Amino acid sequence: MNIGVFGTGIVGRTIAGKLSEIGYLVQIGTRDVEKTSNGSDGDFAKWHHEHPNIEIANFADAAKHGQILVNATSGGASLEVLHLAGAANLAGKVLIDIANPLDFSKGMPPTLSVCNDSSLAEEIQNAFPEVKVVKTLNTMTAALMVDPSLLAGDHSVFVCGNNAEAKVEVADILNSFGWKTVNILDLGDISAARGLEMYLPLWLRLYGTLQNTVININVVR
Amino acid sequence: MNIGVFGTGIVGRTIAGKLSEIGYLVQIGTRDVEKTSNGSDGDFAKWHHEHPNIEIANFADAAKHGQILVNATSGGASLEVLHLAGAANLAGKVLIDIANPLDFSKGMPPTLSVCNDSSLAEEIQNAFPEVKVVKTLNTMTAALMVDPSLLAGDHSVFVCGNNAEAKVEVADILNSFGWKTVNILDLGDISAARGLEMYLPLWLRLYGTLQNTVININVVR
Repeated sequence: MNIGVFGTGIVGRTIAGKLSEIGYLVQIGTRDVEKTSNGSDGDFAKWHHEHPNIEIANFADAAKHGQILVNATSGGASLEVLHLAGAANLAGKVLIDIANPLDFSKGMPPTLSVCNDSSLAEEIQNAFPEVKVVKTLNTMTAALMVDPSLLAGDHSVFVCGNNAEAKVEVADILNSFGWKTVNILDLGDISAARGLEMYLPLWLRLYGTLQNTVININVVR
Repeated sequence: MNIGVFGTGIVGRTIAGKLSEIGYLVQIGTRDVEKTSNGSDGDFAKWHHEHPNIEIANFADAAKHGQILVNATSGGASLEVLHLAGAANLAGKVLIDIANPLDFSKGMPPTLSVCNDSSLAEEIQNAFPEVKVVKTLNTMTAALMVDPSLLAGDHSVFVCGNNAEAKVEVADILNSFGWKTVNILDLGDISAARGLEMYLPLWLRLYGTLQNTVININVVR
């Protein structure tokens, strides 16, 4: 199956790499294919050298390529990137939204550019009503998203979205990343993304306190 | 030791009852002593019948009584209640802040009346700079606050505040409620309350999904 991943940062590279490793045909979408390909970003160049099967494409081409799409851009850029990808190229497809609307412009700690009565995922869903947005994986560091075994024992990953079948498809991908079904919690419609994004300030504080990014929460019941 | 608990709702009653049970001399603070005492609130009257050692006092008297104070009022009322208690009666004391700034006025789910670049706990700390505010226990249901053994295995309780000694005093109380030291996470100064209060939308969604209030998160690292 073909997947298009928007974003060439650590989250995009990690997700794209894992999807390729487990057999998906992956295109990674970027604003400027020439600039991304020319090796000026050393981290990206090193990663791409290790993942030669992943094609670099502009956002529109990556969107056309993918039967499933992943938003791994920074939260502040997500809506613009999706407009560049093009509503027609997104329509009818599952969009896995991992982005967090972190705003670093006022210094540390970052605030959220949208929260409380809406969320980035809801803004995306509202802007692109024909896309099946599923929010997931935004509550942890990239390495853990694709390898939950980095932490011993049970810990939780959340999904939410308005389309039940889309959530099943995403849960299948999470399973293939190593997530046990019992640890995948479906929180209902896309408005649950408020809670998932508003968890970020606590995550950031846990990271600062524990001085470790490989942390997660387990819902105990 | 004397403790004053502000608030006669389920959180105030649960905390006051536990503190009394483990040997503290507790006054429970209310807006109108006469009204609270006359039995018109059946839940409160039943609870008070079972806890005859706990005196009902107005907020100012409960504040004078307590060497340690607990804010278990609703978030929307907290600042007014503390002003009624009186800055002079609060000064120099530890104030355990359990309140959440939930705003139900716009329907369900509630929003937060303050979040993102501040928190209720910070507003309290700013309004009463001589009080040692420690935020804790706001991330779970009342029954679990005073009996963590209701859930099997490890799960987390958070503390934050600007005064290190105050946090040690609060950790001692948490220990006496049954919280293991390893599960008490000190997240630093009072601004960490943003994360603790902004967790509430996720908690509410977990509650709605799991149809169970006796839930908590364990920080896995």
